[in-house]
Amino acid sequence: MRTFRETLHTGYEQTLHLEGDPLVDRESAFQHLQVFDSVANGRVLVLDGILQLTDRDESAYSEMLVHPPLIEHGNVKRVLIVGGGDGAVAEEVLKHPEVAQVDLVDIDAEVVDVSKEFFAHVNKGAFDDPRLTFYPEDAFEFLGRTEPGTYDLAIADRPDPVGPAQSLFANDFYARLQRALAKRGIGVFQTGCPFYQADELAETHKLLKGVFDEAGVYLTVVPTYTGGFMALTWGSNGLQLGTADAGAVRQTIAASGVETDYYNADIHAAAFALPEWMRRLVR
Amino acid sequence: MRTFRETLHTGYEQTLHLEGDPLVDRESAFQHLQVFDSVANGRVLVLDGILQLTDRDESAYSEMLVHPPLIEHGNVKRVLIVGGGDGAVAEEVLKHPEVAQVDLVDIDAEVVDVSKEFFAHVNKGAFDDPRLTFYPEDAFEFLGRTEPGTYDLAIADRPDPVGPAQSLFANDFYARLQRALAKRGIGVFQTGCPFYQADELAETHKLLKGVFDEAGVYLTVVPTYTGGFMALTWGSNGLQLGTADAGAVRQTIAASGVETDYYNADIHAAAFALPEWMRRLVR
Repeated sequence: MRTFRETLHTGYEQTLHLEGDPLVDRESAFQHLQVFDSVANGRVLVLDGILQLTDRDESAYSEMLVHPPLIEHGNVKRVLIVGGGDGAVAEEVLKHPEVAQVDLVDIDAEVVDVSKEFFAHVNKGAFDDPRLTFYPEDAFEFLGRTEPGTYDLAIADRPDPVGPAQSLFANDFYARLQRALAKRGIGVFQTGCPFYQADELAETHKLLKGVFDEAGVYLTVVPTYTGGFMALTWGSNGLQLGTADAGAVRQTIAASGVETDYYNADIHAAAFALPEWMRRLVR
Repeated sequence: MRTFRETLHTGYEQTLHLEGDPLVDRESAFQHLQVFDSVANGRVLVLDGILQLTDRDESAYSEMLVHPPLIEHGNVKRVLIVGGGDGAVAEEVLKHPEVAQVDLVDIDAEVVDVSKEFFAHVNKGAFDDPRLTFYPEDAFEFLGRTEPGTYDLAIADRPDPVGPAQSLFANDFYARLQRALAKRGIGVFQTGCPFYQADELAETHKLLKGVFDEAGVYLTVVPTYTGGFMALTWGSNGLQLGTADAGAVRQTIAASGVETDYYNADIHAAAFALPEWMRRLVR
């Protein structure tokens, strides 16, 4: 029997049993790409040995990066996606008819190619949507030449701070992204699983508070991002997330017609509740 | 290097790296007991090859089995703990000064002995509290001779439905437990991680709705109970959980003086929010 073993966290491993042979197992210009079908977790995308997406639980990740900020903002027209070459986040963004422009910047065009072929059931043609433009380049460089105030929402669907993604965790990255956002614009950042990656949350939260008018954290739970809660940090040009009235959120979701597998109005409110131990990390 | 590998879910394994040699590794009259220190997860208790408790994340489990129902009930005097031989749940119950009586029924006295020795920093002398009585026997039998209406709160800190715990998942168990509860009394049941154990949640919820006036589910997130959310189902003799006013919960917690690592008023409210996919399981 074939297996995939992930050793992201010191002293802890998770192992998935494969169904059949791997579908992809090769080096791109930037990283090692793997795609396989697993017994327990469905189809899986792995970059440099780290689980990026499984089709069984990606909704908990991609829906939660997208809908809470988009619903609270209320008028998102232009969206930047940093990373996200698998198209799962783009697919969620494009569910909202008021979104007019999605710029997706992923350094590795091969991730997009592989995802179009093997995760079409997840990204559902997002790359063919005329509102989406794919920029196969470094997001830090891209932000360096972005007109200030361009985006209403920027989503950092970045991998962990290793390999080609390291530049997406530095102070300069947050500063460039902040400038690229319009007034009331929101940036949302994948920030790891604090149970195993506490420093990543504490440090990112501190950087965001230095760069943005408002900053905070909300949570999702993605089983194959092992370690319990995943932290999604956010910073904004003046909009405070997590304060929307639950009834209003419920109405906005219903009016949008957006269908989800994880997100709903109750989950929206609940996501901003932090366990005591995590509160202490972001005090 | 020594490792412990858990194979609870088909097609999925998690592996913990050990620090040093195991502290306990032997057969009791009922099951295989293991205790070891791990690199990533602190000290660990394992029964029959399944992780029961780590001192790094047990608060997410034991606090959430105890404080939400106890706070919402508002006047819990007598508590039954089914299983819970490690003493972690008892320690949380005993934090509440209004609790007068705790009966802990675990079939395996050796789990209690081992936990007194190796998890004293978790159970903090709970077994020496004069309010607690330990009954080393089968909980199903114990409930058969319990006077109806005895308990205000019954907590099933049961392992997974395999081995000696199987009788704690049958309809008769819920019926006996319901009879043992007073008016407004609440039963809370460990019901697995629905991402990998969806049937356990759906079936338990259905049984509880048949047996109790009110029934439902709330959630916690315990990293080493891999699979994301853990479901805690509940049934009650007339009290509806999850409807308490957040401000009132906050005041009650503050007034109780109870200190926690996971639970707080925001988490209390958030715990009753279910992701869409899980809502569909308990419709």
